[in-house]
Amino acid sequence: MLPLHFKVKDKNVLVVGGGKIALRRLRLFLEEGARITVISPDVVPEIAELSKADKLNWQAKKVELADLKDALFIIAATNDSAVNEWIAENASENQLVNVASNANKGNVIVPKSVKKGRLTLSVSTNGASPTLAKQICEQLSKQFDEQFVNELEQMYENRANRKRNK
Amino acid sequence: MLPLHFKVKDKNVLVVGGGKIALRRLRLFLEEGARITVISPDVVPEIAELSKADKLNWQAKKVELADLKDALFIIAATNDSAVNEWIAENASENQLVNVASNANKGNVIVPKSVKKGRLTLSVSTNGASPTLAKQICEQLSKQFDEQFVNELEQMYENRANRKRNK
Repeated sequence: MLPLHFKVKDKNVLVVGGGKIALRRLRLFLEEGARITVISPDVVPEIAELSKADKLNWQAKKVELADLKDALFIIAATNDSAVNEWIAENASENQLVNVASNANKGNVIVPKSVKKGRLTLSVSTNGASPTLAKQICEQLSKQFDEQFVNELEQMYENRANRKRNK
Repeated sequence: MLPLHFKVKDKNVLVVGGGKIALRRLRLFLEEGARITVISPDVVPEIAELSKADKLNWQAKKVELADLKDALFIIAATNDSAVNEWIAENASENQLVNVASNANKGNVIVPKSVKKGRLTLSVSTNGASPTLAKQICEQLSKQFDEQFVNELEQMYENRANRKRNK
């Protein structure tokens, strides 16, 4: 697995499933400005509210092959692992698929991550323990205080100025 | 920027440029089993050797629009930032582009990362200081010793067994 950081603003993200896990995943993409479609006959109240507020597009139906077509990212997060794996198998070669029920079946893992100003850290235990990954991430993030965040912002501005003056 | 971890095995990766930065980037993808094409009139000796050993496909020419077509990932790493930005502008919406000369122009950042057994950490300062990101990454990785790596592997095996026995 190769860690990469993505600008997902305006990218099409398909979330299949409407439960707690689907919600947790889609929030990550929503915060970054992705265009989200949720396909699920039922959804948790939070997803229904996001849909009402036009923050995402909810289609209250079961997933079909044609639904997979346009998305760059697909989150397979139904409560039926056979459906999730069917999604991974039927996605095209250049689509990025996260299978919530079994990360090995997809080609994308969503690691635990933390942002402190310009600093982004991510931690994955590659299936060993999501709980431990979360603990490690929180513990590491404590090592960077507000002063560090401010200094990093200053470094960014200095570097951007140097690039502009080149 | 959203941190995600990718399985890039057998994915098409186009590297435009043949210098030290192109080499550093392509090594990351090569270690993970990606299919790499390098397009550059000239390359550093290491890339020429990898091509001779059939580890990648080197095309000794300047990049053209048609070359961008099939890749999932595109690394724009020529020594001409105008060419790199041309690549980012001409990639299609669902292609993932890293612009080495100016990360803001692409939609993918390659963070500093470290692997210790099943643990993967990544660190990005989002353009503030790649050098500092590297130092932070090395410093964080020292907090995890061989015993931790072994325990994590054990946790993975236990968890995999529990899943199988469900």
